[in-house]
Amino acid sequence: MTGKHQKVALNPKSLPAPPARFSHGVRKGGILQTAGQVGFRPAVEGEPPTPAGPTLREQMLQTLANLQAVLEEGGATWDDVMMIRVYLTDTAHFAEMNEIYNAYFDEHPTEPPAARTTVYVGLPAGLLIEIDALAVLD
Amino acid sequence: MTGKHQKVALNPKSLPAPPARFSHGVRKGGILQTAGQVGFRPAVEGEPPTPAGPTLREQMLQTLANLQAVLEEGGATWDDVMMIRVYLTDTAHFAEMNEIYNAYFDEHPTEPPAARTTVYVGLPAGLLIEIDALAVLD
Amino acid sequence: MTGKHQKVALNPKSLPAPPARFSHGVRKGGILQTAGQVGFRPAVEGEPPTPAGPTLREQMLQTLANLQAVLEEGGATWDDVMMIRVYLTDTAHFAEMNEIYNAYFDEHPTEPPAARTTVYVGLPAGLLIEIDALAVLD
Repeated sequence: MTGKHQKVALNPKSLPAPPARFSHGVRKGGILQTAGQVGFRPAVEGEPPTPAGPTLREQMLQTLANLQAVLEEGGATWDDVMMIRVYLTDTAHFAEMNEIYNAYFDEHPTEPPAARTTVYVGLPAGLLIEIDALAVLD
Repeated sequence: MTGKHQKVALNPKSLPAPPARFSHGVRKGGILQTAGQVGFRPAVEGEPPTPAGPTLREQMLQTLANLQAVLEEGGATWDDVMMIRVYLTDTAHFAEMNEIYNAYFDEHPTEPPAARTTVYVGLPAGLLIEIDALAVLD
Repeated sequence: MTGKHQKVALNPKSLPAPPARFSHGVRKGGILQTAGQVGFRPAVEGEPPTPAGPTLREQMLQTLANLQAVLEEGGATWDDVMMIRVYLTDTAHFAEMNEIYNAYFDEHPTEPPAARTTVYVGLPAGLLIEIDALAVLD
């Protein structure tokens, strides 16, 4: 309003509505921050959010697609991403997560790759992975 | 000193002193980052930090008040907040946290709302919630 | 490329190669974000990453050295750091972590100190601490 930059909500139509008063992403000036995304399938009117499947692979690929939708809504690409925070529920998933991660970023090259932190936390029942991203645009 | 922007510590008098060599918040140029806040009551000279109460509601409202104090110390408001990271200890608290979150931001409107990530971690005994926030000012 | 600022990878030679397609740190314009660092010793050709030792102290001091290497690779110092995220595996380590933290930043003064969030998560077997940092440069 009064300032140079306005904060803009990034809520792609493909994502289920956030379960509380938060945005799937926001951009203000050159900074774009996504909310933590999980592997929920594209929203279906009148149905609750549903994971893409029970496996890490299914959920992670959907999570990355959801993140990409938020980035694009904000005019960003993976190339603008500085930091990716990966939340897993089980240390046994680390190797498979890395495989999926590398394959995904083979297909969505980003040069250089973003930084990343992976930690192991609790998540709501049925969810194996959550990811958020910070991007800096020119 | 030599640069355009100086890093400034944000340590509101109402908050107990940090338990180590960190600041409750810092601002440099247009970026403001708070430390993780918990539900400690306003500092009382000579007494150790004490949670506002045993319930999620009491601790969360105090945590949000502490965050607001840090934001204000840095010349920011909730409207400048881009990202809110919520750390809970129990997935069973998610629904109640969302209720409190929505009611709080009904009273402290921010348009559009910040992004948010919620994960479930361990916290020191007696603490049920920790929250930190990233703000971008014009 | 087309923009004002280019994203640059920060991968100090002293650190083991990242275990997946991510960078130990990235800088774009005035924003520098490190990946989560752990207490791995400097890389030895042909050997897998090895923690500096089994104790919190050994791992934490190595982690801080690794973070410093990433910061320096990006032209930053601890003075530019806004936020330090500490991931521990055991709440019983909090007091010792604070002691090591304070002693380290006595020797590496930063005025004012960065903000900090500490939470307790799972980490891969043998690792007791992970830390990442966000810096803002002039």
